[in-house]
Amino acid sequence: MSEKISYFLKKYQDRIENLLLDVFPKELSEDPTVKASMYSLLAGGKRIRPVLMYMVADMLHVDLEVIDDYAAAMEMIHTYSLIHDDLPCMDDDCLRRGKPTCHIAHGEAFALLGGDALLNRAFERVLLAVSKNPNTIKAACYFAENTGISGMIGGQSIDLSSEGKKIDTGRLCELHEKKTGALINASCLVPYFIYVADHCEDQELYSLIHRFSAGTGLGFQIKDDLLDVQADAQVLGKTTGKDERDQKSTFVTVFGEKSAQKMLDDTYNDVYDALDELASRGWDVSDLRQFSDLLQNRVQ
Amino acid sequence: MSEKISYFLKKYQDRIENLLLDVFPKELSEDPTVKASMYSLLAGGKRIRPVLMYMVADMLHVDLEVIDDYAAAMEMIHTYSLIHDDLPCMDDDCLRRGKPTCHIAHGEAFALLGGDALLNRAFERVLLAVSKNPNTIKAACYFAENTGISGMIGGQSIDLSSEGKKIDTGRLCELHEKKTGALINASCLVPYFIYVADHCEDQELYSLIHRFSAGTGLGFQIKDDLLDVQADAQVLGKTTGKDERDQKSTFVTVFGEKSAQKMLDDTYNDVYDALDELASRGWDVSDLRQFSDLLQNRVQ
Repeated sequence: MSEKISYFLKKYQDRIENLLLDVFPKELSEDPTVKASMYSLLAGGKRIRPVLMYMVADMLHVDLEVIDDYAAAMEMIHTYSLIHDDLPCMDDDCLRRGKPTCHIAHGEAFALLGGDALLNRAFERVLLAVSKNPNTIKAACYFAENTGISGMIGGQSIDLSSEGKKIDTGRLCELHEKKTGALINASCLVPYFIYVADHCEDQELYSLIHRFSAGTGLGFQIKDDLLDVQADAQVLGKTTGKDERDQKSTFVTVFGEKSAQKMLDDTYNDVYDALDELASRGWDVSDLRQFSDLLQNRVQ
Repeated sequence: MSEKISYFLKKYQDRIENLLLDVFPKELSEDPTVKASMYSLLAGGKRIRPVLMYMVADMLHVDLEVIDDYAAAMEMIHTYSLIHDDLPCMDDDCLRRGKPTCHIAHGEAFALLGGDALLNRAFERVLLAVSKNPNTIKAACYFAENTGISGMIGGQSIDLSSEGKKIDTGRLCELHEKKTGALINASCLVPYFIYVADHCEDQELYSLIHRFSAGTGLGFQIKDDLLDVQADAQVLGKTTGKDERDQKSTFVTVFGEKSAQKMLDDTYNDVYDALDELASRGWDVSDLRQFSDLLQNRVQ
């Protein structure tokens, strides 16, 4: 990892970590629901979605201060989805990011409520962003659509209803486009919608960022599925080999490890193509390129 | 019940029922999460919060079409909170509005996800409202604050952490001001914030509506606690006598039935006082007065 990307990653990661420290009102810090939320929010996530949001914003010369509320809201949405996903009635997982999951540490009731609190708070933050910058309303609507039933929640629903069933490739792709892809998509395109609020619509720019984000989302999921069979649980920080056990439809359980690896490579070729085209239009994609390389080759 | 109030109630109830029929995209109507959400959303609720919202809006001559999105979002928030509250890890209830609760009918996983979907969709709707009417952003922020950790979720958290414990009167009031009061408060004040977007700030009007809504929220909870010991489960449509069994701190378990009844009467005296003062300032409160009478004397 070059020093430059390491510096840039850290810069964005520090920025989001700082924002996440006080997402709830100080006077409620002892509330058990807030404690459950914060336990998971500060459990050392990689902050991939906010980092992507900041990097695309920087590429487009969008003010990062305008992005902050959306970046914080995005990580809150991601975290609530993990808390609820880990609950006994869903994936029933006890290890996440190397630590006991929220319901193991704080009990099921506060984990459930803590997830709800993060979800609601994310939208308080999005609405705060709109009240500070009314011309970001289109970005806010796009954000909300991608976190909901047409996006992430819809993907979870397909995932849940296809457990133990064989699903076809199209359905598997729809599942992951929504479940993992939607948040990554929103992370890359919220900055675009903020950018066009002050510029002309640019359909080609939209398409290229969309192609980059779609590949990044798909690649992220294929890599996750590969890590489930390839990685060490201790390095990964979560239980491995679960997909097979839970009869999940993943790129590995459906296509096999070798084909999944090829799909990952093909997907990243498309990601780099999109970045090349953005570069040829004059945008500085060097950080996004190095970040993509990092994501493609991650071990956890 | 006079014919006039019956007509007005039905007018508002029909309006909200119609809105709730298609809160999710039509192409997702077979999605199991959407089905779980809709099962609870259309389970015959009394729609008290949207009705209050419409009535206050009518009193203030605020266009009901501007209110629609907020009214739908409010009922979606209320419904998701019931679905999650009924889950085994929370209240573990199997009967709601005379029907099996969501997780009994659709399984725990889809009930959890169905609640999340409603919560997210409510904010998609609120953001849609803001994009149609940007000057309602203050109302939107107030809405979000009242549904979150500083409002309803905060109340649920206090409720959960005080189970089996003796709590003092102040804490009991804070619990209910947040748990039940916050949504009723937002229902009455969202129209105010939309009203002032086109008028001068009116602190006295705000205070009077706030006094009305605070009394209505408190009265609603005391009445609920009384019905838990007084009502027939079949008429009420949910399990009775639960509060004592679950060692809940309610106005009845803390103060006894007789004192709770007196508190209810005192609270409604204050509600009617607030309405009298609104009337003396020229506002037509006749519907709100009759609706209050209905709420005070309800049997379910």
